[in-house]
This record gives sequence, structure tokens and C-alpha cells, in this order.
Amino acid sequence: MAEHAVTLESTLSTLLEERKYATLRDILVTMNASDIATTFDEIPHDQLPRLFRLLPKELAAETFVEMEPEAQELLIRGFSDNELKEVVDELYVDDAVDIVEEMPANVVKRILKQADPEMRKMINEILKYPDDSAGSIMTTEYVSLRPHMTVEEAFKRIRRTGVDKETIYTCYVTEENRTLVGMISIRTMLLSEEDNVLADIMEQNVISVTTMEDQESVVQMFAKYSFMAMPVVDTENRLVGIVTIDDAMDVMQEEATEDFEKMAGITPIDKPYLRATVTETFRARVPWLLILMLSATFTGIIITGFEDSLSAYVILTAFIPMLCGTGGNSGTQSSTAVIRSLSLGEVHLSNWLEVVWKEIRVAVLCGLVLAACNFVKLLLVDGYLMKNPAINPIVALVICLTLVFTVVCAKTVGCILPMLADRIGFDPAVMASPFISTIVDTMSLMIYFQMARLILHI
Amino acid sequence: MAEHAVTLESTLSTLLEERKYATLRDILVTMNASDIATTFDEIPHDQLPRLFRLLPKELAAETFVEMEPEAQELLIRGFSDNELKEVVDELYVDDAVDIVEEMPANVVKRILKQADPEMRKMINEILKYPDDSAGSIMTTEYVSLRPHMTVEEAFKRIRRTGVDKETIYTCYVTEENRTLVGMISIRTMLLSEEDNVLADIMEQNVISVTTMEDQESVVQMFAKYSFMAMPVVDTENRLVGIVTIDDAMDVMQEEATEDFEKMAGITPIDKPYLRATVTETFRARVPWLLILMLSATFTGIIITGFEDSLSAYVILTAFIPMLCGTGGNSGTQSSTAVIRSLSLGEVHLSNWLEVVWKEIRVAVLCGLVLAACNFVKLLLVDGYLMKNPAINPIVALVICLTLVFTVVCAKTVGCILPMLADRIGFDPAVMASPFISTIVDTMSLMIYFQMARLILHI
Repeated sequence: MAEHAVTLESTLSTLLEERKYATLRDILVTMNASDIATTFDEIPHDQLPRLFRLLPKELAAETFVEMEPEAQELLIRGFSDNELKEVVDELYVDDAVDIVEEMPANVVKRILKQADPEMRKMINEILKYPDDSAGSIMTTEYVSLRPHMTVEEAFKRIRRTGVDKETIYTCYVTEENRTLVGMISIRTMLLSEEDNVLADIMEQNVISVTTMEDQESVVQMFAKYSFMAMPVVDTENRLVGIVTIDDAMDVMQEEATEDFEKMAGITPIDKPYLRATVTETFRARVPWLLILMLSATFTGIIITGFEDSLSAYVILTAFIPMLCGTGGNSGTQSSTAVIRSLSLGEVHLSNWLEVVWKEIRVAVLCGLVLAACNFVKLLLVDGYLMKNPAINPIVALVICLTLVFTVVCAKTVGCILPMLADRIGFDPAVMASPFISTIVDTMSLMIYFQMARLILHI
Repeated sequence: MAEHAVTLESTLSTLLEERKYATLRDILVTMNASDIATTFDEIPHDQLPRLFRLLPKELAAETFVEMEPEAQELLIRGFSDNELKEVVDELYVDDAVDIVEEMPANVVKRILKQADPEMRKMINEILKYPDDSAGSIMTTEYVSLRPHMTVEEAFKRIRRTGVDKETIYTCYVTEENRTLVGMISIRTMLLSEEDNVLADIMEQNVISVTTMEDQESVVQMFAKYSFMAMPVVDTENRLVGIVTIDDAMDVMQEEATEDFEKMAGITPIDKPYLRATVTETFRARVPWLLILMLSATFTGIIITGFEDSLSAYVILTAFIPMLCGTGGNSGTQSSTAVIRSLSLGEVHLSNWLEVVWKEIRVAVLCGLVLAACNFVKLLLVDGYLMKNPAINPIVALVICLTLVFTVVCAKTVGCILPMLADRIGFDPAVMASPFISTIVDTMSLMIYFQMARLILHI
């Protein structure tokens, strides 16, 4: 893919230099808007406006939507008012909202000025919903039908108004006051008689979301019900918009990426990796590293408090990274499993006891197996093969008992913390690997030194 | 949600005990198949067959598809041949394949025996493709049209054959020998004149995938192009099936979950958290913990080699967990960012130099900020406030220089390893947090002791 794109871009650049506009247009119209946008994003910015003007109107708008915000802004600044109007007129309202949200105020002003009054009203309508709500990802361009219509009348209406709608495949049946009373697919209508009345053949049990619903749970409902579109209603069950499955898919991917980032201690910045500048990446990463580094003060205090005993039994030091590491890994496994299940809706807070009980049993099994393997390894490899005189069965016992308790504590903390975060309204994803590891480090050391004190009497 | 489901299940159970079948049926038909399945999965297994038989034929098949494999098997074993045939006849072929893949051999035999010959042929066709390939997630039930057809003829054909097709909204135009020559949406047809010929109005630049394409890249294409369906062709560009967006969405969710699991050192088991038994969960987790624990042997060896110096400067021990932890966190940030970008197709292997150069610059910035903060904190908090006599500017310098080098090494390793894994054909996701941490632990200790040797002359 990458090699192919490079050749294409240089070809386009060369053809543009040679003013072969007809050839360029011939090439561009064979391409998909998404591919054109990818190519355009790689082309020198000063060539962009000339290339863009070669696109037919509809393809131009589709391509525009797919481009990076920087390139969009550059193009808009170069557009005449007329050119801008042509692009804006072709946009779906939800795409227009996405663009408006990324642009600086003076560009937004120009866009809204060129949009026709109805479009401007719809844009402002969607803009008022909070980020990450169903309202903010919906479109207000849907097909609405009336219950008394026949299939024939419905098709007439769709033919007349459908061209501007984001989808025509799922149509919504509403009363005069926009109350949602049913939904019907084009498929059902195509397979029905022309004189059937919608009220008789529509689906009456419509599953809908309200405008303020979290976008993540909207996506979960798409995954659960295999819908193509989901109606969005206000508190009085009046239809205000729809979310289409392709937008839901984008949200699903975004949300998963955000979870990956949060779970690695990165503040999400909503930009592809290579597009984020070094400063942006640095800013997204350093706060968590700093917080976690400073919280590691506790491990330092614990070790310092045990300094004298450690100088007597220096061998104990050698196993600190292994114990902290195994604890961290055990905790990470549990927290990741719980965080993902919570976000997929497979586990609810009401299941907390079931989760903890399961994790404890898994932890005891894991701890025992790890301890047994480690015991054998210590005596055989470290003691017998590497002839380390400091390793004896008593020291091995301290290490292995610590392993068992650490794994059990780590897995318990690992499953409880994300649920606790969820309970008090935080995102469970921040309770992942780095955070758990820091806490588990402290716990493992406390367990380790307590064991040493008890068994080695130091 | 959870509380609501509990009430509903007990109501259904009670009504069933009281043989209120009409009431039960009234309740069930108002529900969505997916919700019925969730409810049925919670109901005592001996009541299941009686409840299931209350469902109307089509709803029964839809519900059956959404149920857990255990419940499906139980139902099939209780079905008469006739009942089984009724359910199988209503299934879409890709759903039938999913079920067949989960069932033991003798149940599969019964299913295939009851399926009509065409269905059996289609099931066997899809079963022959490897797991995770486009062929294995496609359906062979699509609408195919001919280029010379008019819109009116096309609609006639869709009305005649559409009822069995997974989607009718995107239709594919093929030659007699099944070669894919175009695609056309119902929307385009509805908005065209009845006597338009498909060849003139169809989209001729059809983006398709081959049967052996990896399912993850199919999903990426859906996200990129906002398609509703993707045609799957054989090596001679003959149409063999389509993947629909709702199935792509399921695959996207599955693949993300698998990545989360792999990145936390869990072997994916493809079962919701609460459904996996303790033994299954234990088996999925213990191997990685064991491998990582045993690889921590290296950290032990390094510390043992430095034992004498450590007993002279015990204070150095106190900062081992902080240094290893910060190194691990830095590496995890980079590996997670790179793994996710690779899997979204935002970064390709050809970008490796750009990635490494970016990570190094970010690492130097992060390292310097962390070191500076830590230097101040050591002298102010540990030295001045907590009056630790062992902390002096020279010791602080050793710790802070180690921090800078550790962060740079960790981020470099963190970004290179996933790309290296990808290059040699492994899944980059296994090169995540736990694996990176173990390597970085070893590196940080080596850097730490080297610094101590150089600066403290021990």
C-alpha cells in the first residue's frame, strides 16, 4: 500500500507541473474519495488547491470530508465564497459538524455564512450536545414517514427527499409532533404490496437512545442488535436524529484506541501516531510518567526502612525486580480483563462479588504454580548449578511464599480498582497496567519483608 | 439493565410453571431476538426447550443465532428433525457456519442432514476457508445482477430473491461467469429512472478483497471507506461472497479484545469474562506469567553480580523499583502507541525510521523532565525533609542520569520490538507491556550499576 501511494503522489505532482489537467481528472475520478484524501494529504500544500479544483463537485465534497483538518483549513482559506458554498452544500450535516468542530473561529464563521439556513440550523442543533453524547454523533438527515402512508406513497416520498439523507434504508415512522412510533426498512417495503399501510407492516418495538446517552453505550447497542441505524430521541420520545452504523464503527475504533492509550498511561490526543508532533506526544505522555514516578516514593521508603536487614541478607535484593514484575503482570492481567469486560458491557458493577471470587481462585492457582516452579528453579539453577551459597531452602521459601501472596493481592487489587473507579464515575481504563504496577510494587515489597522477618527472624 | 433482566427471567419462569403460554408468547414477541437470547441464557436449562417452542418461526431462528453455544447445543439435542429443519431453514448461511463451528461432530452431522442441499453446499464452501480469513466471515447470500438489466428488471429480481439475502442494499453486478464488474446501491436505483440500464449507472471501480485476505484488514477497509458491504472474490475476480458491515463490526470488537488480552499477557479464549471457567482463565494466564517470571532471572543475576557494591551503598537499592517502574511505563507507552497504530494501519513497517526518530526525541524530553523533577525531589524531600543522610547530590546525579538513559532505551526498545515482531511475522501485540517491562528491568539495572560504578567509583 505505502509503496503504491508514493508512486501515485509523485505522478500526480508531475502531471500537475506539466498542466496535464485532463489526464489528472481522468485518474482522480477512477479513485475512491478516501484514497484521494490519503493521497492529497501527502502532496505539497501549495499544489493542493489546484488539484482539489479538478474534482467533480460531489467527489470534491466526499474527499474534503476525509482529509486531515490542517489540509481542510488550508483549502477553505483558499476557497472563494462560491467554492466554499459548493462544498458545504454537498456535505452531510454530521460531517459538516465534524469539520466545524476542528476549525478556528473565523473559518467556522465563513462556513456557517455559506451554509443555507436549514443546514446552519441543523449544524447548530448538533453542536449544542456534549462531546461523546449520542446527540453529538447523530445526523439530522433521516427519512421520516407517517403511519397512514401506503408503501407506494412512502417510496414516492423517499424518491423526492432521499437524495439528501444519510441513509434511506431504515426509515422512521413518526406522528405529526415527531413522536417516534415505528420503523420500517426499505427491504420490508420492497417485499410488501404497494397498497400496504405502514402502520400495519412497520416494526413497533423501536429501540432508541436519548440525545444525552454516552456514545460508547450507543456503540455497544449496535454491536448487540446488529442495527444499521439507531434513532435518537429527546426526553419526550420525539425523533431528533439517527446514528448510522458507519459512524458507530468509527466511534468504536476511536473508543478502543482511547482505551489502549489510557491503559498505557497516555492522554488521548485524537491524532494518528505519525501526525502528532513530538511536543504533542511528549505532553500526552509525561504527566503520567511523572505521577507514577513520584508515587514510587513509597517503594523507596519501604526499602529504606528495611535497609539494615537487607545489608545482612543482600541476596534478598536480587529478587525484588522479579517479585515486583510478577506482581505487576498478574495485576495487569486482571485489570485488563475487567476493564475490557466493563467497556463491552459483559460485566456490570452488580457482578463485583462474582468477579472478585473468580479472580481470587485464579490467583491462588497461578500463585501456587509460579511458586512451585520458582522453588525448583531456585534450588536447582541458582543453588546447585550456579552455586550461589546464599540460596538455601529457607530463603527459597521466603521468596515463594511472597510470590503466592503477591499474586493473590495483585489480582484482587487488579480487579477491584477498575470497578471502584467505575462506581465513583471515573473511567476504569486509567486503573490499568502502570497504575496497578505501582501499587502492586509497594504491596509486594511489604509482603516480601514481612515474610523475611517472620521466617528468617531478621 | 442487570436488575431489569433478573425480574424478567423470574417472571418468565413463573408464567411457564403456571402454563400461561399465551401470555408468555405475548411478552416474547414484543422483544428483540438479542434480548430474548440474553434472557434465555439465564433461564434454567430444563425450561429452555419449552420456552423456545413458543417463539414464532422467524423470531426463533433469530434468537437461536444470538444464544450461547452451550444453550444452542442443548436445544438442538432436544429438537425433533422437523424442528431442527425449521430453524436451519431460517438461518443465514454465515450464522449457520458460526453455529456449525461451535458444535460437536454428531450435532454438526444432524444439522447438515436437515439443511437443504444448496444451504449444505454453501456451509461447506465457507467452512473450507481458514479462520480469520475474509472467506470465513463472508456470506454467500448476496444479490447479483447483470449489467444489461434495467432498473425495473433489477427490482423485480430483488423482490423475487431478496428475502433470503443477508443484505439487498448493495447489489453486485456480475457477468455470466460470475466475474465482478460493478456494484450498485438500492439508493441509486430508487433515485434513477426505471428504464436506466445498470451498466450505465453502476459504480465500476469496485473495491473488493480476496477470500484469503486477513479479516483484520477487511475490517480496516470498512473503517476507511465507510462501506455497508464488501465483495469477496477469488483469484480470478469471480464473486464468491460478501462481508456485511454488522459482521465486520463484530470482528472489529473481537480483534480489539484479543489485542487487549495479548497486550496484558493473556492468551485469548474467545469467551465473555463471566462465562470462562476458573480453569480456563487460569490456563490462559499462567503461561505468560511463568515465562516472564523465569526471564526475570537476568535481573537477579545482575543484582547478584553487584552485591558487594550494593552492601556498601544500600541506599541505591531503594530506587530500584522506581527506576524499573519508570522504565517499564515509558516502554509501555511507546509499544502501545506503535502496536495500536500498526493494527489500525496508521503506521507501516516502511515508517520505522520515522517512528524510532520520533520516539527518541520524545524520550529525551520525557527523560530530562523526569530527571529534573526527581533531582529536586531527592534533595528536597528525601535529603532535606526526611533527613536521609545517604542522599547527596552525587547519589542523586547517579539516579537521575540513570532515569534519562533508561527512558531513552525503554522507548527505543518499546517502539522497535513490535515492528520487529511484525516484520518476522509475529503479532506485534505480544510485544506489549509485560514483555517490554521484563526487558527494560534488565536494561535499567545495567545502566544503574554502570552509572554508579562510573560516578561513585564503586
